[in-house]
Amino acid sequence: MNIGIDTMGGDFAPLEALRGIKKYLSENKDNHTIRLTLFGDVQELNRIITEEAISTDRIQVVPTTQVIDMHEHPTKALKEKPHSSIATGFHYLAKDKTDAFISAGNTGAMLVGALFNLKTIEGILRPVISSIIPKQGGRTGLILDVGLNADCKPEQLNQFATLGAVYARHILEIPDPKVGLVNVGEEEGKGNLLTQGAYPLLKANKAIHFIGNIEGRDTFNDKADVMVCDGFTGNIILKLAESIYDITQKEGLENAYLNRFNFEIYGGTPVLGVEKPVIIGHGISKATAFCNMIYVAEKMLQTGVLQKLKEAVQQR
Amino acid sequence: MNIGIDTMGGDFAPLEALRGIKKYLSENKDNHTIRLTLFGDVQELNRIITEEAISTDRIQVVPTTQVIDMHEHPTKALKEKPHSSIATGFHYLAKDKTDAFISAGNTGAMLVGALFNLKTIEGILRPVISSIIPKQGGRTGLILDVGLNADCKPEQLNQFATLGAVYARHILEIPDPKVGLVNVGEEEGKGNLLTQGAYPLLKANKAIHFIGNIEGRDTFNDKADVMVCDGFTGNIILKLAESIYDITQKEGLENAYLNRFNFEIYGGTPVLGVEKPVIIGHGISKATAFCNMIYVAEKMLQTGVLQKLKEAVQQR
Repeated sequence: MNIGIDTMGGDFAPLEALRGIKKYLSENKDNHTIRLTLFGDVQELNRIITEEAISTDRIQVVPTTQVIDMHEHPTKALKEKPHSSIATGFHYLAKDKTDAFISAGNTGAMLVGALFNLKTIEGILRPVISSIIPKQGGRTGLILDVGLNADCKPEQLNQFATLGAVYARHILEIPDPKVGLVNVGEEEGKGNLLTQGAYPLLKANKAIHFIGNIEGRDTFNDKADVMVCDGFTGNIILKLAESIYDITQKEGLENAYLNRFNFEIYGGTPVLGVEKPVIIGHGISKATAFCNMIYVAEKMLQTGVLQKLKEAVQQR
Repeated sequence: MNIGIDTMGGDFAPLEALRGIKKYLSENKDNHTIRLTLFGDVQELNRIITEEAISTDRIQVVPTTQVIDMHEHPTKALKEKPHSSIATGFHYLAKDKTDAFISAGNTGAMLVGALFNLKTIEGILRPVISSIIPKQGGRTGLILDVGLNADCKPEQLNQFATLGAVYARHILEIPDPKVGLVNVGEEEGKGNLLTQGAYPLLKANKAIHFIGNIEGRDTFNDKADVMVCDGFTGNIILKLAESIYDITQKEGLENAYLNRFNFEIYGGTPVLGVEKPVIIGHGISKATAFCNMIYVAEKMLQTGVLQKLKEAVQQR
């Protein structure tokens, strides 16, 4: 299997991307099933590869001459910069020269790239992005959508639940993930038009273990493993959760649970619903984040989670 | 001025309600402009008044014989329990026997009571509830709506902004409150259909100092003093914020800023848009919360903030 990596994306690229690759390779010396394809400035990459003494046995470098900046308009940038690391990375992915693609670059360009270059899995209404949420008591939760679909229909929320449950089972290794609908009250019938419409669909969805509504206060507790919401709500919850770590840093607080709000440790967020793994990292990604993104891509390939998503949505 | 207090509402009623009243009275010995009307079980109240040695000079007790429990259906309970402390409290308010009403009881019954017993201020599309949000750096923010209007129209969000700015100016004493629209991106044009529609209205609203979109990560920073959103989003943000204090307690963290997430210190949340002050407290309210709710009601009456709300919405 061949994982493509945009080495030019993110605030600390390409050095930290390559350090992450080095970390991954050194932790997986005997695993020869995964090869890495690096997209970036070939001279700079070769210089860092030499300086950092990175083994090139399982690495292929594809030279790219342009970079999409963090604040460029996604669609425009992809069109005007066909030789950028992101555009080339998607080109390789679409042509089956790679099996997955990772970047910590322009999030919008990564989303647009995934939606335009890859087929949506049959039966999927709309792709979705998810995020890990650290739960009290050591568990790990998943929230989706966190931004791809600002306005949703009830059927979409129901499908997010199915996708989230499959992902939680196979990638997060939660055997029977509890699925909760993010809402403003516990009782059935509470909510806005969207959640009122979604509740009965989720209740009737046999592919998931639906536990009912969860509230804002349940974001960090064990009530639900998979938290389902529209992309507007999820984006606000995620960015608020991310800010908690900044606050603990600013306040000089040292706490094992709050340290898990350092979202760098989770690597990145996969786009779910397209036919190949696409992982989007934070702009602030460092070596650990890049390394963890490779792990997520590897696990998605090895578990065949996308095939399982396809089966789950078609089963219903 | 006469402030009505439901002494039977909340998990620690009536004892903590009366202790809060005692605290308020002892802190305001020389202020004879405010009288308090207590609704509750007259025998129990008299017993506690004696035991706690509460001065009765400025207190009037109105006997009520029923209590609306925390989990009762609001509309049904108000109809079936006309002699409850909440129903009687609103009856007094509607008949001008009191000037404000406070309760830590059934939130739904308080909202229904406010909407059905009081007139909506002329020009107000829909009443709204707000909450204080502790900001880093010592400032205090306001978020609204936090639950009355799960589905909103852009015009409503624009009016919430006006109401929030007036409230922040006169009650929170922020001279020129910065108003932000809770959204999924900073740039104009980002968002769901609601926020995309609200943005140009807010931009054109001369009654407010609009600073543009804010994101989930800005909830606790100084970017905006007044944070505007639909009641679904606001409810989730508020309940999530409340859960942060529970986490710090559970983790044994002691920090001046995080201690401000103890929402009890803020007293309660006013229903904005009805013609008289109605303050709803948390079910877990103790003496401090009750005392602070009386202060909020007093300040709302003394500043004439409701008249100012009326002028602000009619001016536009």
